[in-house]
This record gives sequence, structure tokens and C-alpha cells, in this order.
Amino acid sequence: MSAVDHLIHANDSYVESFPGPRPLRPKLRLAVIECMDSRIDTFGALGLTIGDAHIIRNAGGLITPDVLRSLAISQHKLGTREVVIMHHTECGMNDFDDGRFRQELTDESGDVPPWDVPGFDDPSAQVVRSLEAIRNCKWIPHRDEVRGFVFDVATAKITEVG
Amino acid sequence: MSAVDHLIHANDSYVESFPGPRPLRPKLRLAVIECMDSRIDTFGALGLTIGDAHIIRNAGGLITPDVLRSLAISQHKLGTREVVIMHHTECGMNDFDDGRFRQELTDESGDVPPWDVPGFDDPSAQVVRSLEAIRNCKWIPHRDEVRGFVFDVATAKITEVG
Repeated sequence: MSAVDHLIHANDSYVESFPGPRPLRPKLRLAVIECMDSRIDTFGALGLTIGDAHIIRNAGGLITPDVLRSLAISQHKLGTREVVIMHHTECGMNDFDDGRFRQELTDESGDVPPWDVPGFDDPSAQVVRSLEAIRNCKWIPHRDEVRGFVFDVATAKITEVG
Repeated sequence: MSAVDHLIHANDSYVESFPGPRPLRPKLRLAVIECMDSRIDTFGALGLTIGDAHIIRNAGGLITPDVLRSLAISQHKLGTREVVIMHHTECGMNDFDDGRFRQELTDESGDVPPWDVPGFDDPSAQVVRSLEAIRNCKWIPHRDEVRGFVFDVATAKITEVG
């Protein structure tokens, strides 16, 4: 039995407790941007309920063109106004050499990956850079309420930065 | 009080019930790719616990270069082997005209957005296309265990496709 078969079984129980339909537009008018890291349960960590907020996640929680696309759609088309950016301790993107990684993939596959997303060292310093990237992005109409945090993967505590 | 201030308060309670440190590498060796939609609580819907799986989310849950980057890092560097792709009913990307949206952003800002990610109509048909996009991607080393689902936002039930 694969991991996925267990998830299908778990979904059967979840359906029984699900609160039912909610509107497409997030109730808190909020988008959360964070890392794909397996130790971050966004709903739990931030006390979210079904229908509250958009959740955008990639490797590192970094402000890539795809994150800007998602956030632009979130604000322009689905009514969100506030943004939370959350990096975290012990991230897989710490000291990550994206240039070397892309070279490895190119050597193995013969194709050059179409991205350029460097890693970072300090999550707090990265929050400052990510806040700046959002605040400088002209495709994002609402940039007054953009706040940044570091999530501690040992304790789950969030600390505001910037 | 902004929405975010409520989340900070909720985090205080969450910290008290948090199970503590887990390894960087996901225990189920699984990555989940899905939409940013506010009605999908990934941990709840799939019965995940802290440390189980990477979670990658964008507008539509679509297989963009940034999703391939995240999944390549997940498999090459952090040991995941299985992939779940989950689209959902009533998606904000249904009938979405990305070309028109990019034109709107260009007209407003003077800068052309660096993405090209069309919307879609039917979530099941999109699952088939997304599965194919992963299975054809040479930067992803493990492509045997890639499975696709549609999440029903009214009931939370997942249905396998493909």
C-alpha cells in the first residue's frame, strides 16, 4: 500500500467533518506565501478555517514569477488585500546552490531548467528581501498590508520581522 | 485589528499543542501539488501530520516552471518519491484568460508579466494534462508514482483521475 492509499482512506473520515461549501473569495481577504516544508501546517499554525485565505507554497517560499502570478490573481480577481510572507528555520533552501543544481539537471537531461531562484542563509534576512520584492511589484495592487514572519520548525512559533 | 493580528494570536495556542521537531526530509516521501484555493486544508483533507509531505500550491495547482523547480528539489535533494496532483471544483482558474490578464497588468504597470499560464475548464481533464506534464519532465527523477485527484470544494471528497 503506497502512502497515497493511506491518504485516500483518511479523506473518507475528513469528509464527514467538513463544514460544507464556502465562497470562492477568501473571507479574510488574505494570501499567505510560504515554503513547501512538510513541518508547516498552515491552517493549524495560523488558526485558519475553511475559506479564510489563499495559500501559496513553493521550495523556499521565495517570491518567484509564479508566486507573483498567483498573488496578482488573488488580489485582482479574488479580492484579497493583505499578504503574509513566512520563511522558516532549517529550510532546505539554506545554502542551496541553484546554479549548481541547474547544471546537474542540465547534465542529466540535456535541457536547461527555465528558472533562476537562489537559496538563502538567514530566514529573517530573507523575509526582508521577500517583503521588498512584493512591495516593489507593480502587478500587485495592494501592498500596504504585507507582513513577514519566521516560523520555527522546532516550536511552531512565528516571529514577525521587518 | 487586521486579519493577521488574529493569526498571530491563534499561533500562541497552536504552539502549545505542536508535537515538536521533525526531520527535514518528508516521512511519507511524498509531494502534493495543488491550488492556493482557501477551501483546501491539505493536512486535514489528506490526514497528513507534521513532517509527512511537501506541499506546493499556486493559482490553479498548475505545473509551472516554479512547480517543477520545487518538485525537482523535493525529489533530488529531500528524498521524496511519490507525487499527488490535486485540482478542484469551482476553481478561480476556470475560464480564466491569462493572455487578457497579462495585457491588463501590462497596460496598468508598463511591464509585461514573465509568465504564460492558461486557465482551464474541466478539473478532471486538467488532472490528465498535469499528470502528463510531470511524467514527461526529465528533471523529475521519480515519475512512476504520480497520481491525480479532483477535490470537491462542497464536500471535501477527493476522486482519483487517470
